Formats: sequence, structure tokens, C-alpha cells
Amino acid sequence: MKVHDLRTPALLVDVHAFDANVVTMARRWPGTSLRPHVKAFKSTALARRLAEAGHTAFCCATVKEVAGMAAAGLGEDLLLANECLDLSPLTPIVQADRARITVAVDSAETVEAAARAGIRDVLVDVDVGLPRCGCDPADAGRLADLARSRGLEVRGVMGYEGHLMREPGATKAELVERSMALLLEAHAEVGGDVVSGGGTGTWDVNRWVTELQAGSYCLMDTEYVAHAPEFRNALFALGTVISRSAKGWAVLDTGLKCFAMDHGNPTVVDAGDCWFVSDEHLTFGVAEGTDVRVGDRVRVLPAHVDPTVSQHERLHVVDGDEVVEVWEVDLRHW
Amino acid sequence: MKVHDLRTPALLVDVHAFDANVVTMARRWPGTSLRPHVKAFKSTALARRLAEAGHTAFCCATVKEVAGMAAAGLGEDLLLANECLDLSPLTPIVQADRARITVAVDSAETVEAAARAGIRDVLVDVDVGLPRCGCDPADAGRLADLARSRGLEVRGVMGYEGHLMREPGATKAELVERSMALLLEAHAEVGGDVVSGGGTGTWDVNRWVTELQAGSYCLMDTEYVAHAPEFRNALFALGTVISRSAKGWAVLDTGLKCFAMDHGNPTVVDAGDCWFVSDEHLTFGVAEGTDVRVGDRVRVLPAHVDPTVSQHERLHVVDGDEVVEVWEVDLRHW
Repeated sequence: MKVHDLRTPALLVDVHAFDANVVTMARRWPGTSLRPHVKAFKSTALARRLAEAGHTAFCCATVKEVAGMAAAGLGEDLLLANECLDLSPLTPIVQADRARITVAVDSAETVEAAARAGIRDVLVDVDVGLPRCGCDPADAGRLADLARSRGLEVRGVMGYEGHLMREPGATKAELVERSMALLLEAHAEVGGDVVSGGGTGTWDVNRWVTELQAGSYCLMDTEYVAHAPEFRNALFALGTVISRSAKGWAVLDTGLKCFAMDHGNPTVVDAGDCWFVSDEHLTFGVAEGTDVRVGDRVRVLPAHVDPTVSQHERLHVVDGDEVVEVWEVDLRHW
Repeated sequence: MKVHDLRTPALLVDVHAFDANVVTMARRWPGTSLRPHVKAFKSTALARRLAEAGHTAFCCATVKEVAGMAAAGLGEDLLLANECLDLSPLTPIVQADRARITVAVDSAETVEAAARAGIRDVLVDVDVGLPRCGCDPADAGRLADLARSRGLEVRGVMGYEGHLMREPGATKAELVERSMALLLEAHAEVGGDVVSGGGTGTWDVNRWVTELQAGSYCLMDTEYVAHAPEFRNALFALGTVISRSAKGWAVLDTGLKCFAMDHGNPTVVDAGDCWFVSDEHLTFGVAEGTDVRVGDRVRVLPAHVDPTVSQHERLHVVDGDEVVEVWEVDLRHW
């Protein structure tokens, strides 16, 4: 199939940019030192490409992602890097030894949820400065003891320095070092082999984790590319110009149901500037001297990859004008 | 099933608020004087409730919505209130007389697309001030002639004054009158019985259209409720507290994949203030004196209904703690 045969709106992956991103990351974080985060793409087909590149241990954010990865035969080492109180869908998978599943815990309740579901392995999730999940570093040892008393294997710690992904380069390394010092302090109390953390925004400065939890790097978005410029925008929406005004604007069929908007407007490629996005439309000011007509196809870069991909059923992998593969976004929803 | 048995995150509809909204709107715009906009809820099950309330003519924004409504037996009078260049999925429906389908046109290309697909009825879409679709009012007559020359029945005009939905009450009526004057000017040139336009934000001030294109009113969101306070928030996300910090915040499992963010943060009900939303988390500051614990269920109001609903597979209709119905969001995607 050709790109121009696709119905729009459609989500596209430039296979060359994707492959380049995978190679760039694997050079610094080879094999299982990278734990790609499935939440960024929610596709077992894409995950399989990363496994083929040597990254056979994965991060997940939802029970559905874990179960789906296990069902796809990608369950060698799955970390549910998130707190969850109902892990019961994972019980049969662990019992049948169909995957190795480790879950994050940061409270007595989440330890209890893991034990109740028959989960065998946990990481203690530590607050390293982002006001989200994670226990106080000073409480990590107690939680590890509690987990062990409930029969759980404590593999180590995790902590996500998500508040530092957008720091300017000059101060980022220093702030990440301070953040990771909290994680290492907790690790000293907890024990285990694993110190898990980091992300696409700190891939080049985090020297303290034993495994990096990066997911956005392989598809990227306009927001992240400013903070990790070694990676290329591989993800595009393809839209059709459905209306053209003599007053200077044109309208694409790529609306709010195509794009996450939490990082702002998407970016129209080579045709003009996005003015605003509504439910099923994107209005852009046509760049001077640009010939934009009804029926033209236009590419648009999303500002935030994860919640953009999760709005689509599939990713069309393209090489020039050729659609070379279709990856179902099969791990969406909960 | 009980609400407390639902896995979270889940999207809920308060049946009493929904029913009240339907009654309020039907009092001012009864029967087919209201053309409910399917894009706001993308569910044939919900649409059927509106049809039962007398609103048997619908607006759609995508070809998929039109085809799905026709397949569900709700095709008495479907308006594709949007420009589209590939209407071919609708051809067999029109040929078999399984629905009456009218499409919006605003250019020679969209007239041609309608004729090519065997569509019989069109409305001329007119620019009434929102920089989006719609022809120049002065061009509407020419487009109508072109459509008639291609064998199309021109039923009238449509124009959406979306730029005025959020105007303060005092000036809104006056601005809508001026905007609708453009539509009526075009209508004089075009002819036909239909003058279609308006929305939830102008439901009480638009006295010029023969049918109102409102969709958000039945579920509502925090943004619209400020501009149409006669309607109630019927739509909630239900989340679970998965983490609790002694530093004053708690974390819900309702993240960016639950909520549209283009109108800002969602609103946590009775537990605290939303600080930020990330992929699978919502961090909120716990209100003083409020006892929030891991495992608690919390309701959250979305800021924008349409692109929130489109992220979910289903709506759970609730009456107190009882889940009384499940409406599939079956018209999502393209």
C-alpha cells in the first residue's frame, strides 16, 4: 500500500527515523540495560522490534500492558513500574510461569496487593523529587522488609526523575545526580540488584541506574526533541486539507481526537503554522508563497507522543511513499 | 454491577444529570429542531436515547459516525456537518436507501466528492466568523448552483458560530445575531428549507437557525458548564488512589489517556486540587481536613467532553452506586 492510499487522519512512523533512534539508544544502553517503556507506544508489534534489537526486558504502566506483553511472548522480564491495587489479571500468568512479572510498591497497601495476587517480585518505588508515586527514601527499607515478610522477592528500587526531563542541559546532570542520590540511599536500605529509573530526557546524564526506563525515544515528539536532540521525530499524523479560505488559512482533518494537547499544539510540517485544533479539525495559517489546495496531504508532528499514540488503533510504518508495516496499538485502554 | 466493582480508570455517566440535560434542551429545541452532534459522544447507544426523546435527526463529524448511525438504524436524517473528500464508504448506504445522508460542502472539490460518491443531499457550509470550514457568504449561491448542476439537492445552509460559544452573556446574543446575519445572507442566495448551526454554548441565544447542532449539552464538561449553566456535569472519570504522600499529595490512576487536556486540567471532586496529569497518573493536593487513603475511589470531571469520551471504549451509566447500563463508544476513530 502507498501512503497516498491511506484514509486520513492516520498515524505514521518513519521507519528510518525509528531505526536510527533505536540504534542511538542501544549504543549507550544496550540489551537489558534499557527497559523500554511500553506506555509510550502500547504496541506489541513495536515492542517486538525493540526485543529484536536486544531489549528483552520491558516497563509497563498498566496491568493490561503487562498481560498483553506476556500473551505476545514478550514476558521475559516485565516491570509494572506503577502502583496498582488490583493485580488479579496477572495471577494466572505468574502461576503458569508465562512471564516474569515484577511490580512497583510504595505502601503497605500495594505490598499487600502484590502478595494477594501471587506476584513474586517487587521493586520499591522511591520518591526522588517528582510529586507522584514513590515512598519516602527513609521508608524504603521498612517497605522492603514488609514485602519480604509477605514472601515477596525484593529485586531492588526504582525512582523516576520525571521533574528533571526538561531542565536545561547545564544544570540537568547536577540535579539528576542529587535526585539519584536519594534513590541510592534507598537502595542501600533495600538491597537487590536493580536500580531502575530515568527516561528519554535523562538518557545521557543518568549514570546511576542499572537500567533506563525510556520509551518516548523511539517515536519522539516536538516537546521531547528539544530535550533529547539526538533522537529524531519518527511519528507523524497525516491529514488532508478539507477546506481552504481565501483569507489565508486551511483546515486539516486531524483534530483533537488525533493529538494529545497537554504539551500544546502540534506542528504542521512545511505548510504553515497551527492556529488551533478542534474536535475534528486543525486550522493553520498557510505560509506565504505556499500553494495549499483542498485535497493536499500534510504531515503534522505531535507535541506529546504517549497520549497521541493511545488515541489511534494503528501505526502505519512508512518508508518514503510505501507503507511497509502496520503496527496495531493493541495495548490501549485498561 | 456496582460502581465500586468497576475496574478503574472508568468513564461514568450520571443518569439523572443526563436525563435532566436532555429534558432541558428538548424544552427549547424539541424533536428535529435539535440535531444532536454525534461527535460529542460517538455512541449509538447514547444516540438512541436522544432519538427516543424525539431527536431523530443527527449531526456527524466523520464518515464513520454516519455509517455507524445508519447501521444502527438511526439514519432517518444524518448530516455530515463536515467537509470530506472521500465519501465512498457512504455510497452503498445511499444506494440501498438505508439512510438519508446530507453532507456539507464549501468548495468545488467537496461538491465534486459528494457527486462522485452518489450523495443526494448537501448543505452549503458558510464561514460565519470561525476560521475553519465554510465558504465566503458571497460565494454560497455560486456553490449551490454548482451543486445543483451536478444533480445534488441543496437543502439549505449551515454555519457554526464556534468562536462565540465562550463570549460573556451580555455580548453573546448580539455577536451571534451578527454572525447569523451572514448565514441568512447566504441562505437567501442558496435557498432550501434548512438553516443549521449553533451549539451548546449558544443554545439560548441563537434564534435564527431552523435546527441547532448541539452535542456537548447531554454529558457536559467543566469548561462548557460556565457558558451554559442550565446543563449539569453528567460525565465523570472514576479513579483509584494508588499512592499517598505524607507531603500532602495523592495520586489517582486517571492520567492523560483518560482526559482531553486542551481545555486544561480536569477537576477532582471533593478531595483536593489537581496539580498535574501525566500519562497514567493524576497528582492532586489533598484538601485540608480530608482523609484520602490508598484504595479510595475519587471522581474527576473532564474539562472537554468530546475528546475525553473518544479516548474510552465505553460509558458506564450510573444511578447512585448502581451501574444501570453500559454504552459502547462505538463510533470512535475514522
